[in-house]
Amino acid sequence: MRYLKAKIFSLILVFSLFIPIHADEGMWLFNMPPSSLLKAKYNFNVTTEWLKHMQLASVRFGGASGSFVSPDGLVLTNHHVGQGAIQNLSTKDRDLMKTGFYARTRAEELKAAGLELMVLQEIEDVTTKVLGAEKSDMTAAQAAAAKDKVIAALEKESSEKTGLRSTVVNLYSGSMFHLYKYKVYTDARLVFAVEYAAAFFGGDPDNFTYPRYDLDISLFRIYENDKPMNSKHYLKWDTAGVKEGDLVFASGQPGSTGRLLTLAQMEFLRDVSYPYTISNYERRRALLKEFSSRGPEYARQAQGPLFGIENSLKATIGYQSGLLDKKLMEKKAKEEQALRGAVKKDPALDNEFSKAWDELADAQKKFASFFKAYRFFEGGAGFSTGYFNTARTLVRLAMEKGKPNDERLREYRDASLPSISRRMLAVTPIYDELEIFNLTDSLIQLQKEFGNYQEVKWLFAGKLAEDVAKDLVTGTKLGAVEVRKKYLDSELDAVYLSDDPMIKLALLVDPISRGLRKKYQTEVESVETRNGALIARALFKLKGTSIPPDATSTLRLSFGAVKTYMESGKKIPFATTFRGLYDKAAKFKNKPPYELSPSFIKNKAQLKLNTPLNFIATCDSIGGNSGSPVINRKGEFSGVLFDGNIQSLPARFVYSDQQNRSVMVHSRGIIEALLKIYNAKPLVDELLGKK
Amino acid sequence: MRYLKAKIFSLILVFSLFIPIHADEGMWLFNMPPSSLLKAKYNFNVTTEWLKHMQLASVRFGGASGSFVSPDGLVLTNHHVGQGAIQNLSTKDRDLMKTGFYARTRAEELKAAGLELMVLQEIEDVTTKVLGAEKSDMTAAQAAAAKDKVIAALEKESSEKTGLRSTVVNLYSGSMFHLYKYKVYTDARLVFAVEYAAAFFGGDPDNFTYPRYDLDISLFRIYENDKPMNSKHYLKWDTAGVKEGDLVFASGQPGSTGRLLTLAQMEFLRDVSYPYTISNYERRRALLKEFSSRGPEYARQAQGPLFGIENSLKATIGYQSGLLDKKLMEKKAKEEQALRGAVKKDPALDNEFSKAWDELADAQKKFASFFKAYRFFEGGAGFSTGYFNTARTLVRLAMEKGKPNDERLREYRDASLPSISRRMLAVTPIYDELEIFNLTDSLIQLQKEFGNYQEVKWLFAGKLAEDVAKDLVTGTKLGAVEVRKKYLDSELDAVYLSDDPMIKLALLVDPISRGLRKKYQTEVESVETRNGALIARALFKLKGTSIPPDATSTLRLSFGAVKTYMESGKKIPFATTFRGLYDKAAKFKNKPPYELSPSFIKNKAQLKLNTPLNFIATCDSIGGNSGSPVINRKGEFSGVLFDGNIQSLPARFVYSDQQNRSVMVHSRGIIEALLKIYNAKPLVDELLGKK
Repeated sequence: MRYLKAKIFSLILVFSLFIPIHADEGMWLFNMPPSSLLKAKYNFNVTTEWLKHMQLASVRFGGASGSFVSPDGLVLTNHHVGQGAIQNLSTKDRDLMKTGFYARTRAEELKAAGLELMVLQEIEDVTTKVLGAEKSDMTAAQAAAAKDKVIAALEKESSEKTGLRSTVVNLYSGSMFHLYKYKVYTDARLVFAVEYAAAFFGGDPDNFTYPRYDLDISLFRIYENDKPMNSKHYLKWDTAGVKEGDLVFASGQPGSTGRLLTLAQMEFLRDVSYPYTISNYERRRALLKEFSSRGPEYARQAQGPLFGIENSLKATIGYQSGLLDKKLMEKKAKEEQALRGAVKKDPALDNEFSKAWDELADAQKKFASFFKAYRFFEGGAGFSTGYFNTARTLVRLAMEKGKPNDERLREYRDASLPSISRRMLAVTPIYDELEIFNLTDSLIQLQKEFGNYQEVKWLFAGKLAEDVAKDLVTGTKLGAVEVRKKYLDSELDAVYLSDDPMIKLALLVDPISRGLRKKYQTEVESVETRNGALIARALFKLKGTSIPPDATSTLRLSFGAVKTYMESGKKIPFATTFRGLYDKAAKFKNKPPYELSPSFIKNKAQLKLNTPLNFIATCDSIGGNSGSPVINRKGEFSGVLFDGNIQSLPARFVYSDQQNRSVMVHSRGIIEALLKIYNAKPLVDELLGKK
Repeated sequence: MRYLKAKIFSLILVFSLFIPIHADEGMWLFNMPPSSLLKAKYNFNVTTEWLKHMQLASVRFGGASGSFVSPDGLVLTNHHVGQGAIQNLSTKDRDLMKTGFYARTRAEELKAAGLELMVLQEIEDVTTKVLGAEKSDMTAAQAAAAKDKVIAALEKESSEKTGLRSTVVNLYSGSMFHLYKYKVYTDARLVFAVEYAAAFFGGDPDNFTYPRYDLDISLFRIYENDKPMNSKHYLKWDTAGVKEGDLVFASGQPGSTGRLLTLAQMEFLRDVSYPYTISNYERRRALLKEFSSRGPEYARQAQGPLFGIENSLKATIGYQSGLLDKKLMEKKAKEEQALRGAVKKDPALDNEFSKAWDELADAQKKFASFFKAYRFFEGGAGFSTGYFNTARTLVRLAMEKGKPNDERLREYRDASLPSISRRMLAVTPIYDELEIFNLTDSLIQLQKEFGNYQEVKWLFAGKLAEDVAKDLVTGTKLGAVEVRKKYLDSELDAVYLSDDPMIKLALLVDPISRGLRKKYQTEVESVETRNGALIARALFKLKGTSIPPDATSTLRLSFGAVKTYMESGKKIPFATTFRGLYDKAAKFKNKPPYELSPSFIKNKAQLKLNTPLNFIATCDSIGGNSGSPVINRKGEFSGVLFDGNIQSLPARFVYSDQQNRSVMVHSRGIIEALLKIYNAKPLVDELLGKK
């Protein structure tokens, strides 16, 4: 403790400009937890057992989070995290998004095709092995390739040895590498889902805001060998519920943050990447709204994609607001100047690290020159249809599987093949009219931006985008699982002889896409990795590893306090109630997106309206944390994280616990609703351990 | 001798139907020469030294033949073999095809860009090694792949060890494998060429006929380190000249024959392959004639291609005439029945070999179903322009060089890379108008045959073939050697990012082309190899290896006698004279293609008109033998083979020495013309060893 304090103190002296006194910031590594900090600030003792239990009770749910909440494999997550699966289980005549779902018996639980849930079993530090591959005379690209080879070998070896899906995670911009080993579960069944209206009350206007009134939950059960799995490490329920000031933890998979980015990298996002992303989302949102307006079935089909786009758009606008905030950027600039100055002062550091910032800045300039092409071709933005993704996967799988494991595109290495296979063989609905609609739009953009590219000229052949899209979507047979299976089992040459137009399209644009990907890896990614690692090492030398790494879509631990905040001179309460929900609905005359679901209208009388529904805490989070269990000191499930307030969005780059808040569904609100609104006593009994 | 006779006798008993008594048939392997036969029939003793000298005096000249005729690296071949180089050295204002060429001093000798001459140094039997890779439980395709891996390794190992270009040659349909090791010479300079009119008097009408009056010769000199090479093994000149009945040998690289083909394979050629080839050549000939008619420079540019097409067309029609000859086919059928019957009789043979014929027949049926697609895409018939060949080579080189040697397409293995590089960097003329003309035609055919293929739809994009061709040819920059060099040195990803339309075209059609190639290898080639080898083994068991293997574009030894033959009841003399030339020109009023070159008109008075100009012999030959030295008993150069008579064409399938004759330029005719017509005394002195 004294040591930590002393250390912080000395750093303040040198780097007071860029090293904040530690707030509740940080998405911490489970194998490098902020033990001293938690002891110092909250008098909480982190034990190995406590960490292991949390880790094993946490579930990776697609790109987001969830947790075990019963010993019988029951997984709780957000409704919007389970949304893809719920929508896939819906049809025109059985719209589970609209009606919600509850399996009163296990026999009624609905298997979600293609869903994979993973539980992190072990983390191994492989930094020395990976960095050992880099020789001093290598270019950035050569070094990246050499390290990648080692990474591929480590992943393959671990997968084969342990049977666990093993992935090396690049931490601190490539200066630390940990091997994550996951147990993969492929049979998850839908147990419970609220109605969309209840999960997403307030819709897009209220998204990323607080106060909130969302019952954003769904529950799935993992099966093994057709029986509910035995989930020994599950979270017991916090029936009392959190109070103001309580210490809470969130355990989930934050996607990405940019707190260690250089100013040049942030400027790239601000000036190149986000403007494109935002305008792209805005156009697509407008189009999908138009599509939805054609009728109820159109609206149903577009609901998922539209939610996704609105959600991402609002988040990105929030991130961009941080970058457009001159004060924030000035603060960043000063911090960077301070660090560079400190490096410059020490001749050894100067020699090793000083060039890193300029090289990173150069890489941003280079990337700006082909960023859009990269997004449209390799990123697939020019071909917005699930059929194209399928075609590309099948084509590239056939191309890559014939290569040695470590020479393949990352996503086609041995460790990923079972997952690709399951994805390709999952039977999920696809709506051709919507596919044509999306593809048409993306082709129009493609032609606008890259109409002079030979591939685009060929693809259009003087036709209208809509006709090109129609020909592709109506011509492809990739909607049929048996066709996908055939390609999945094919050798490359059989794929080459396909006459499926979508496969042909994937083949047509594969060379330029790969070319752009390699260009990105060589000119941008490897330069970022090398120099990002240099800057991180400079930070370590001057500061130790008291800063957690940026988020990497892997399991992290956040902590913080249940806490109000001030906005426009008003104190914002730490929790909302069911009463607030009804009040707000009334205020907006029950009009979308403020309409109550029929069950909430019908069962209002049963509810204790003062029961807390949502609450907030200072713990650090970002996209990907959705579905994270929020846990009290006793390790009980106090709620499920589903959002951040609008102030938290610029925290992608700079965290502050003054106003940044994560937003949770309250453990008591969940029980109250399950009992009174959904009449789901058996489920509540399971959650409360009373069965 | 007794042994051989006894053997032949016993075979006659069993297989009298299909085993002819040995005529002067055969393109024999230098390491398995017909020693006993030569001793028996011509009382000639083949010695190891004699063979080695012949082998080292023989020069592989592109796909054809030549020989050393002086100790200073002087190589004599046909004019039509040197034609590509001669045409490449010509321009609008210096048309060496028309005027001929003679370098009176070595300084005047003209370096032929991109030309590679090779001399076979050694042959090694690697049959055991190659066949050892095949396991009994392998499919035909797996066995082919396994053997191919061994072949690649043998070639690489030998190339690296010896510095010689090393190629494994598949003999007897895959039942014997020999490793050929060549010394490669890359600096060859034009020393002498006659005028086209003198080389090809009689043109297409007289091509593949006899009597003939062609001075079809050109001479090149090989340089090493900018000095004439020391060609120790050269042929001394036969100043006396051949007489009727003389034994002569031809040493050259016959391209391919089909004497061991099954009936089903011959029917495939007759019904599928040749009809396409012939009609394709006929159309292209008509078009090139139209192109030539546009003016003298057009005619000059088209001369080489037109000659090539007319030559191939006439040959193919000749081959086809054999297949359309019912008697020939009946003979083949009976021979095959006899062999199958003999196999059937012996249970062990029956079990091992009987299915081979049916499987071969099945493979032909399969090939028929995609033969045209294979020719148009993988064969490049849909993209007739040198630019496409260049683009494909550059694209595939970039794709293949990143793979392990034994996994590459054969033509991109390490042993071939220096040659590819030289070819790509050679500066040779290319005429865009002619390229557009040829490409347009091939694209029209492509669209007609495969207009429903997605790649073709894209390529055309509603445009006319001529416009597509124009865009491609005027858009490509591959005509510039520095551009080719750039791609040659590029990694694949840089090629992927090319905006050259011809590179894009090569990328566009690469997948389908590779798919068809693999299909061909799997369903046809490997089945032919496996079963062809079985049939060959059956033949060996029943007959020994007294039958030479089919031609494989590698060095072979033929033998025969200078001999007249009967045609339409008339005896055709064994030689023609200069007098005959002048007579025939006069008969046709000196009109093309029977016009004398100006030098022949001007210098007629100097000539001894009775000097023999061309002569014939029974030695076996086929396309690729052009330029072969014909040698007398003393090992002297008696002439250069340049053609076969029309009767020799069906000998592709069935040889007969009744009428089949090879046609040569006579050694005395060459000297007479060099002295009297071309005033080339220094050259004659060199040939006669008088310098």
